[in-house]
Amino acid sequence: MSAELTPPGELLAFLKSEDNFLIVCHLNPDGDALGSAAALSVALGAMGKKTVLLCRDAVPAFYEFLPGSRSFFTFSNAQASGIPLQEFGNLILVDCNEIGRTGMERSPLAHLSFRTTVVIDHHETESVFGDIRWVIPETAATGMMIHAIIRRLGVALTKDMAINLYAALVVDTGNFRFENTTPEVLKVAAALAEAGAVPHMIHGELNETWSGGRFRLFARVMNSVRIEDGIAIIVLTKRMFEDTSTSADDTENFVSFPMVMRDITISFLLREVDCSDYKVSLRSKGAINVARIAEAFGGGGHKNAAGCNIKADLGTAEAEVLKRIREQLKNSNG
Amino acid sequence: MSAELTPPGELLAFLKSEDNFLIVCHLNPDGDALGSAAALSVALGAMGKKTVLLCRDAVPAFYEFLPGSRSFFTFSNAQASGIPLQEFGNLILVDCNEIGRTGMERSPLAHLSFRTTVVIDHHETESVFGDIRWVIPETAATGMMIHAIIRRLGVALTKDMAINLYAALVVDTGNFRFENTTPEVLKVAAALAEAGAVPHMIHGELNETWSGGRFRLFARVMNSVRIEDGIAIIVLTKRMFEDTSTSADDTENFVSFPMVMRDITISFLLREVDCSDYKVSLRSKGAINVARIAEAFGGGGHKNAAGCNIKADLGTAEAEVLKRIREQLKNSNG
Repeated sequence: MSAELTPPGELLAFLKSEDNFLIVCHLNPDGDALGSAAALSVALGAMGKKTVLLCRDAVPAFYEFLPGSRSFFTFSNAQASGIPLQEFGNLILVDCNEIGRTGMERSPLAHLSFRTTVVIDHHETESVFGDIRWVIPETAATGMMIHAIIRRLGVALTKDMAINLYAALVVDTGNFRFENTTPEVLKVAAALAEAGAVPHMIHGELNETWSGGRFRLFARVMNSVRIEDGIAIIVLTKRMFEDTSTSADDTENFVSFPMVMRDITISFLLREVDCSDYKVSLRSKGAINVARIAEAFGGGGHKNAAGCNIKADLGTAEAEVLKRIREQLKNSNG
Repeated sequence: MSAELTPPGELLAFLKSEDNFLIVCHLNPDGDALGSAAALSVALGAMGKKTVLLCRDAVPAFYEFLPGSRSFFTFSNAQASGIPLQEFGNLILVDCNEIGRTGMERSPLAHLSFRTTVVIDHHETESVFGDIRWVIPETAATGMMIHAIIRRLGVALTKDMAINLYAALVVDTGNFRFENTTPEVLKVAAALAEAGAVPHMIHGELNETWSGGRFRLFARVMNSVRIEDGIAIIVLTKRMFEDTSTSADDTENFVSFPMVMRDITISFLLREVDCSDYKVSLRSKGAINVARIAEAFGGGGHKNAAGCNIKADLGTAEAEVLKRIREQLKNSNG
């Protein structure tokens, strides 16, 4: 996907003609969700429109450097704020494409109804939610789509928008290292840097803010990685969190790290949630589709990154995942 | 440094008018040295010129994916090859700016003399070597300068050139994470990706080729990192290499890793070369100039990355470096 993205005329007309929008991103928001939603909100604001930024969950501390991150309301806070949400006739979902991914249906905002619903997203989908749907799974980040919208709306790209969108790109391309890093992604990154996003500062905010505890946890976990037939197996126990005063939030991307090894094609991490309850994260360099494995345990995800929960003791959980991986490897080689 | 680079007319005229060139990069070559030299060689070849690529040291295995990497001769191999090197009247130094950095003076090629000598480099310098000198310390990589030369020469940017130059940019900007990642760097990266460099493949070749031994060494070393007042102290003993079947080559970038911690501003690594002989690598987030510290021990480098050797036992070496760092921190805060 290297050509410039072209937002549908219907979407642009909608954004131009309407005056107020609730902008909602997915629960457990990441940099692409938050940055994209915030940039869209700033751009619509520059056009004199009213927007409210909503997310089920509070903005994680390490995303607070994003301009506008403080403008996000959780559903409960929005409810309590006194903002007349029922007067906002338009709903825009950003970085997700079904209402279930927002958590809105089971929230204090479940009663709201909308004249028009819109979806702007790059996730694979079988959903049909949204009166206007712009879903481009081939694009690296929703931030790319918001950038295209801002350009086509003729709004001047400000530094605040640029920082939000650059962070979105960095997070969803793994700092321009993933397969989705197309020439167009780099071109947009250059335009954002030109508009005031400072690459090394955004990188610092996103990737150089580990606590000492997280570092100790990381070193300990990497020291205990096991390797079997090109598969890296990582186990994270509650005890490790206690010993290092850390929590599950501190484990982001740990599962990907063993991929630095040439011979590792698949990596999975089992994190103890509770006694006989493990959260499993899977990563692949493309040899197999780990979403298929996660689905077998009721989870899901992408080809190269997926997750699920398994209620079993550690030995069983690990053996079950390994078995499925080996089956798939055998089929793909056979 | 965001504007497009403009090579001196004198340099372009020289490259156009002459027919044969020895292209030499610095000893212990990195991706910027090798990629820049190789891309220049391919471009001049496309203009019908003869070039020979030279480096004191053999191309490291993990750079063999660079197109043209097999065209490099070590000085000894070039001497033995029967190529009439004395007939090449022109010498171009790439990614260094004095002959001492090539190791040529103390090599089988020391006897060669040249009609014209040229320097293309981005390192800070007090050298005056070179009849034609193009040295731009503010630019992120020599690869940026070679890209500008290729454009101005009107040579079509091929996939081979693009891969070499993209690798040069990735290596010298830390995968677009360092302070030198300007909008212009990203623009050139986009142009290179458009010309056929595939970002995720180059990233994989450069960063995902660790051996299992290197991974175990890394985990063990990170597990033993000590932290004092925001300074990370890393020690690498010969014993660790033996235990993991690794060597000094396997430690690239280890010293930078503790920088992921928010509170770490300086990191240094002491590697045991021999009994009471330590190689010291220093990194800084900008709080102090570590080149000054390395210089105090007869070494050198850049503001944020430097190195030196200390002949002393581990305790003394570590204490001496720490003392100098603390003095500088005190001065910069005072």
